[in-house]
Amino acid sequence: MRITAIAGGVGGARFIRGLRHHLDTTPGLEDSTVTVVANTGDDITLFGLRVCPDVDTLLYTLGGGVHEGQGWGRADETHRIQAELAAYGVQPQWFSLGDLDFGTHIARSQWLGLGLTPSEVTARLAERWGLPAHGMRLLPMSDQPVETHVVVDDGEGGQRAIHFQEWWVRHQAAVPAHRFVAAGLDRAAAAPGVLEAIREADVVLLPPSNPVVSIGIVLGVSGVRDALRGTNAPVVGVSPLISGQPVRGHADACLRAIGVESTAAAVAGLYEDFLDGWLVDPADGDTALPGAKVEVFDGPLLMSDVEAAGRIAGHALRLAGTVPG
Amino acid sequence: MRITAIAGGVGGARFIRGLRHHLDTTPGLEDSTVTVVANTGDDITLFGLRVCPDVDTLLYTLGGGVHEGQGWGRADETHRIQAELAAYGVQPQWFSLGDLDFGTHIARSQWLGLGLTPSEVTARLAERWGLPAHGMRLLPMSDQPVETHVVVDDGEGGQRAIHFQEWWVRHQAAVPAHRFVAAGLDRAAAAPGVLEAIREADVVLLPPSNPVVSIGIVLGVSGVRDALRGTNAPVVGVSPLISGQPVRGHADACLRAIGVESTAAAVAGLYEDFLDGWLVDPADGDTALPGAKVEVFDGPLLMSDVEAAGRIAGHALRLAGTVPG
Repeated sequence: MRITAIAGGVGGARFIRGLRHHLDTTPGLEDSTVTVVANTGDDITLFGLRVCPDVDTLLYTLGGGVHEGQGWGRADETHRIQAELAAYGVQPQWFSLGDLDFGTHIARSQWLGLGLTPSEVTARLAERWGLPAHGMRLLPMSDQPVETHVVVDDGEGGQRAIHFQEWWVRHQAAVPAHRFVAAGLDRAAAAPGVLEAIREADVVLLPPSNPVVSIGIVLGVSGVRDALRGTNAPVVGVSPLISGQPVRGHADACLRAIGVESTAAAVAGLYEDFLDGWLVDPADGDTALPGAKVEVFDGPLLMSDVEAAGRIAGHALRLAGTVPG
Repeated sequence: MRITAIAGGVGGARFIRGLRHHLDTTPGLEDSTVTVVANTGDDITLFGLRVCPDVDTLLYTLGGGVHEGQGWGRADETHRIQAELAAYGVQPQWFSLGDLDFGTHIARSQWLGLGLTPSEVTARLAERWGLPAHGMRLLPMSDQPVETHVVVDDGEGGQRAIHFQEWWVRHQAAVPAHRFVAAGLDRAAAAPGVLEAIREADVVLLPPSNPVVSIGIVLGVSGVRDALRGTNAPVVGVSPLISGQPVRGHADACLRAIGVESTAAAVAGLYEDFLDGWLVDPADGDTALPGAKVEVFDGPLLMSDVEAAGRIAGHALRLAGTVPG
């Protein structure tokens, strides 16, 4: 089975890892391949280095190197370089990069500097983390840079735009967002293989990633939404909400900014032109959708460990088998 | 007293540290200032980051952060990033950078990327290491990039040029050098303050740095040699050789490449158009020079610790007081 998923960071990575676990442990599904299309809209250049938070979280999680407690960054991490940069007075200091993590950004930046595309760089990084050997392919959504900015009050009666990471990491999404501006998205072509992966998939999955700033950004890449509408594969999503609240992250704040209710039904509504199935938490079991089959997961929609994420992914796959493409 | 010194890496840094110690502990000399003009001809771009080995060795040594045993790099260093880069297959792997050291290269590269000149970047780095507060100023020899290359046999009957660091670090200078090519040196202007520091000094010192690839490169920067010839200050050098052998490094191999004998007198000959005094080891006590006063140091010319380096620097300063400028 060829599975394609569109993913953001932590939620997406945990879901894909669970999916791979489910495939590995389900007779007949072991040979399935998973293509992950990663959001690169929250990429940022820090200290002159290109940082791709969602891609890195996917790499580390799928490659067995993630800091489990955080959900992002590297296990067994140290922060000596960041302390050096602080001693030198280098800005910004609100985004903490670990030493091992710096290794990834240095490798990426060097390769980009040598002229490799983000797709080529991501493939090299994925090789080290063993993704291809484990039946997984990781594609950035686009080889063109896209940077999501957040329009907030400037404190003087006007508005200003700050980088998504500044809003998300520094302000913990606590500063009300008026809207998101994905700089570069209008010029971003889908990276090589992205549209084909959606069109030629047997199943397309939407993990419980942020519907606005992760999946929503990927959907804005030219051709992606059309490919999802046109694919013969069933498209099944997993709700990122439980009782209308995000399990982690700040999806509610993001939904508020775009004027969408923080409910499983409203999130599904963002996908209504291509969504075939929608898996929700028991607490949101009253969700009904006009164009998609809704199923309620047998237990909380919590990816508390690999097995739990695997059960959710397995349910999503079975749901895909019951809906038309 | 305004002292200006032209320095390479380890030998230069230890000498300047000893000089500062001598000034700090000699009544009447405490307020003296030291301007160090650093060789940047062995700079190299590694992993997309700009590395300035001599400048960094000076910063770390004068700032109290150097790895004493090595003479370069940071004390209490770790090598986690380099291991990451190796895991990613990033080249080259023959030049080992520590994690704390990476912090310097990242800060430098970010600032250069923002448009600061090497002089401005060096001043920022020096600030963190407390050099200005301690009466020291560190200037790169030039703001234009200069990279020394070494012409060696290519193993197929021809020749090829490799970066100086590859020859020095990877091959430990064991591959015979036909000649050195300082790429960019013909277009390199002296950095702001360099020529003034030489012209307006009360004393100019040449530490026991490599006469070919450290001091020799600085002397090739436009205007430097003329400033040394023209300054009213006495110019006093300290021999880098003991019994014709370098204390550390590969000065003998470098001298051989340019067809100069590995003797204290022959090294002084490289400076004969501006040298006023020359301090040699007792083992080279028979050195005689036509244009400069030779003195023999009272003990081996070994900078085994700060005090020993201070005594050498003190002797050089006293020698300067006995020769015409």
